[in-house]
Amino acid sequence: MKKYYLMAPGPTPVPSNVLLAMAQPMIHHRTPEYEALFIEVRAGLKRLFQTTRDVVPFTASGTGSMEAAVVSTLSPGDTVLVVRAGKFGDRWEEIASAYGLTVVTVAAPFGATVPAEQVAHALREHREARAVLMQHSESSTGVLHDVKGIAAVTRPTDAILIVDAVSSLGIADLSMDAWGVDVVIAGSQKGLMLPPGLSFCALSDKAWGHVKTSRLPKYYFDIAAEHRAVVKNEAHFTPAVGIVLGLREVLRMIEAEGLANVFKRHERLARATRSGVEALGLELFAKANPSPALTAVVAPRGMDSEAVLAAYSSSHNITIAGGQGEMKGKVFRLGHMGHVGDFDVVTALAALEQVLHEMGYPVDFGAAVRAAQKVFAER
Amino acid sequence: MKKYYLMAPGPTPVPSNVLLAMAQPMIHHRTPEYEALFIEVRAGLKRLFQTTRDVVPFTASGTGSMEAAVVSTLSPGDTVLVVRAGKFGDRWEEIASAYGLTVVTVAAPFGATVPAEQVAHALREHREARAVLMQHSESSTGVLHDVKGIAAVTRPTDAILIVDAVSSLGIADLSMDAWGVDVVIAGSQKGLMLPPGLSFCALSDKAWGHVKTSRLPKYYFDIAAEHRAVVKNEAHFTPAVGIVLGLREVLRMIEAEGLANVFKRHERLARATRSGVEALGLELFAKANPSPALTAVVAPRGMDSEAVLAAYSSSHNITIAGGQGEMKGKVFRLGHMGHVGDFDVVTALAALEQVLHEMGYPVDFGAAVRAAQKVFAER
Repeated sequence: MKKYYLMAPGPTPVPSNVLLAMAQPMIHHRTPEYEALFIEVRAGLKRLFQTTRDVVPFTASGTGSMEAAVVSTLSPGDTVLVVRAGKFGDRWEEIASAYGLTVVTVAAPFGATVPAEQVAHALREHREARAVLMQHSESSTGVLHDVKGIAAVTRPTDAILIVDAVSSLGIADLSMDAWGVDVVIAGSQKGLMLPPGLSFCALSDKAWGHVKTSRLPKYYFDIAAEHRAVVKNEAHFTPAVGIVLGLREVLRMIEAEGLANVFKRHERLARATRSGVEALGLELFAKANPSPALTAVVAPRGMDSEAVLAAYSSSHNITIAGGQGEMKGKVFRLGHMGHVGDFDVVTALAALEQVLHEMGYPVDFGAAVRAAQKVFAER
Repeated sequence: MKKYYLMAPGPTPVPSNVLLAMAQPMIHHRTPEYEALFIEVRAGLKRLFQTTRDVVPFTASGTGSMEAAVVSTLSPGDTVLVVRAGKFGDRWEEIASAYGLTVVTVAAPFGATVPAEQVAHALREHREARAVLMQHSESSTGVLHDVKGIAAVTRPTDAILIVDAVSSLGIADLSMDAWGVDVVIAGSQKGLMLPPGLSFCALSDKAWGHVKTSRLPKYYFDIAAEHRAVVKNEAHFTPAVGIVLGLREVLRMIEAEGLANVFKRHERLARATRSGVEALGLELFAKANPSPALTAVVAPRGMDSEAVLAAYSSSHNITIAGGQGEMKGKVFRLGHMGHVGDFDVVTALAALEQVLHEMGYPVDFGAAVRAAQKVFAER
């Protein structure tokens, strides 16, 4: 027996009580039972998204809700600014291009973030822009963008701010209403500790205004149509009932811990992971604003990061992630989001020490763990 | 304790072994474990769809794959024929209209089917048609369309035949390759006995030809892009891993029973249900070609079918379904698809006798059950 550990930046481990909640006998989605389930989930999602507005669910992975946000708020010929500092920024460009929108890229090197001032400048240059599309946590590079700052510069313009929070919701603070974010998108398989298959869009009043005039073609991903069902505590199309059953469970877990505590826990896990990695002489890929969701690590000179992944898997039965696109072979990524505690970080770092040693890299055994322990011992 | 029974025409009951398979710890979708899972599922789906071509999965409910079939094979301005004999025919019209296609409706009254000759006539009148869109089992009225006949008349034309088999796959014979069907669409929550959240498209060579020239906008529902992942035993976007784990289990169950036996079982359950219903003096809504997936029953004169539903639920904790759209209040629907056996039909009919009696309708207790038993006793 070699215990399995899922330590990738999503999908993340699903707690056993949630797996069992989802293993309940199937219920029909047009019954009082489903209505009661949805009423609880609908209220809980608002608190999780830190908004008084409705959160609209889609039976799809996160990319589906990214597309829903675009096709439900924009019209042919519209200009959008894409904040790009990683591979998920590319996804925004691909979606916008697929629908014939004019894309203006506001970029930073991978590993860095795009400062709010750079977005403000682009908005002044492109007064016709109807939306700013960005990631909160960019999972490909491990940085966290300044959503609050970018919301502040977008707010006075005609553009809405659409934030992919797939790998930050329930992980990093994202005060949708307080910061004036217009669309927040999330998925089930990261901070929400659920299997993939459900995703979400929450919209501000300004974004609902965009919905009214939107003329891009849409059917399944029509937020307005789905919302008409949500207000009746129903679903437009047959929903992923099993995952909704699990969602009730995780929302209760998050409420019991307290959202502020959830954010603090993730910040602490991330800080401990970074300390441990640096204690081994390794370099973080994020040059500033590291994400609390994951840590991207530059493989030591001369070492293929894919070999690090392979050793984690073959020697220790642990799944981590590699680099995507141009970062393939150069970066490996450790997830610490969702159902994760201190000793998962200890495990990930202890395994890293073993892996590096196996690969012939000089390791001071215990150094990474020691650094993490010091973080955990802080008051 | 009052035992719960889910007897609606989808979602359908999920077998316990499948619920438990889905309750396994989460695995990552870019691992050898997922690849092995997908290889088995990919081969099993081909046998289930009776095709040598790949079946492309989408993390979405059935409507998502209906949209995928349209946006991935057609171009702006294209004409499509919609075979309409129920509410799901309307859905084809809505999807085609949302993308600005020209819709020619080939209709039959609800409760009837559209004969192949009527489609042939429409194809002669509309030689520009690029696709024929239809349901195999029309769940709103309980009829089964003549897919084989319609495929035969569509085959010689430039149009492709796109069949919504959401409530017929694994229930009624649909020999995709042998009959020359171009696109078959299915969902997880009917004959496949899984929770909703996964759906499928399988394409013929003729349909792949349409994909090459298709210019409708698409991203998440791009069948060509998803298929490029399928051939590598991967998923383009994070898939509903939990449901895929369950899918392996149900495919094994279906293979163990044998596909021909699965069809025979459903036909027999449907025949027994119809016999029982008619033995109580009730009228079937389907005037011809009743579907083996469900039985739609006309409520007795003066009785609101919604009250039948309510009594099933409140007195017996059984979920059945009512009429949709213009059939609301007039029709109730009993599902008998997926993980269903003889004694589920006995239960549904025994409950129907009780419900009608409670509502003051004269009932010869045992009459419906007796009629079903006679069908079950046939050799």
